[in-house]
Amino acid sequence: MARQIPEVVILRLPLYFRALALMEEKKTEIVSSQELGARLEITPAQIRKDLSYFGKFGTPGKGYNVSQLLGELRQILGLDREWSVALVGVGRLGRAILDYSELPPRGFLIVAAFDRDPQQIRKKVGELVIQDIAELAATIKNQGIDIGIVAVPPSQAQEAIDCLVGCGIKAILNYASVAARVPPDVRLQEIDPVLVLQTLTYHLKSLSAP
Amino acid sequence: MARQIPEVVILRLPLYFRALALMEEKKTEIVSSQELGARLEITPAQIRKDLSYFGKFGTPGKGYNVSQLLGELRQILGLDREWSVALVGVGRLGRAILDYSELPPRGFLIVAAFDRDPQQIRKKVGELVIQDIAELAATIKNQGIDIGIVAVPPSQAQEAIDCLVGCGIKAILNYASVAARVPPDVRLQEIDPVLVLQTLTYHLKSLSAP
Repeated sequence: MARQIPEVVILRLPLYFRALALMEEKKTEIVSSQELGARLEITPAQIRKDLSYFGKFGTPGKGYNVSQLLGELRQILGLDREWSVALVGVGRLGRAILDYSELPPRGFLIVAAFDRDPQQIRKKVGELVIQDIAELAATIKNQGIDIGIVAVPPSQAQEAIDCLVGCGIKAILNYASVAARVPPDVRLQEIDPVLVLQTLTYHLKSLSAP
Repeated sequence: MARQIPEVVILRLPLYFRALALMEEKKTEIVSSQELGARLEITPAQIRKDLSYFGKFGTPGKGYNVSQLLGELRQILGLDREWSVALVGVGRLGRAILDYSELPPRGFLIVAAFDRDPQQIRKKVGELVIQDIAELAATIKNQGIDIGIVAVPPSQAQEAIDCLVGCGIKAILNYASVAARVPPDVRLQEIDPVLVLQTLTYHLKSLSAP
């Protein structure tokens, strides 16, 4: 079933999850697709359609039970467990990622960090000792690492990604501004501020157009 | 016209632009939608449909002239000029953003940086002197700033965004993991590694499903 769900729907599920988690914190018990849609600027019809891929949720005319839908999304997204993450590249960006306090409470634990700069290797960042990239394969196996985050310069990104893929990693988040390639059974997502800024300038240009 | 173009199409345009720029660097003159699609893992039909929103490009059975399509996309995306950017929040993440060498060659110049921590204000980061957030309005006006990047902790993000909006900024990139709100005439994009990691775990979960 999972294979037929459009990627754009999967990209929206974490937004639903985040909004519902906030509602649960505020003790909201029931939410309508109208209310959820208003908060996320997504049409209620779109929300109902997106969720319908995964089953029957909510009561028509009443809405969704917040805790229940949150529980379902937690399962669908695989957030009912912790995930071990390896970071490759411990420059300024890598250190900002290690420092990012939102990851552990959401279940993403960076348990190993790698660099190939001899000046960095064996240094401590918080609780972690930076390892030589040559140790990647052994560490991934020993620590059961699920996800790789790549924060190296663009020129080194494909090599780092190939290295993770060679070690059996099936999910990679790439921060380098480069279109990297992976085999079909590996998921690669990227975070590239340039791409996002370019969608903003598209809109700025439209605003100033006659 | 611009209003009717689906947001997902706009999100893909920078991917096309990046791939074509790389081809131009490698002196490729003509590319088919098949070749472009293979590189981006997007179907050729999707590429042709996306581009058709903006006019008639390419020759059937032959392909697109790389330089020409690049030029068109540069105009469509508003990349034929430089954009001035203000950074709000100069912690570790903010410093990584200031340090990010890909922005200036793509036309995004961070010309001002703000913080509200007295320990940070007046310190230099590279060529920039960190300013008090209280100076935001005057600086945005004097320097003709177009875009704001928010790199403050989640609890302060909405306030920083409101501040930018109040100063007339119409395009904001938010790095804080929080669903912030803006008026309808302001574009807000977010970079939230948690949301991206959650789409990866969705796929990891699907892989391990029976």
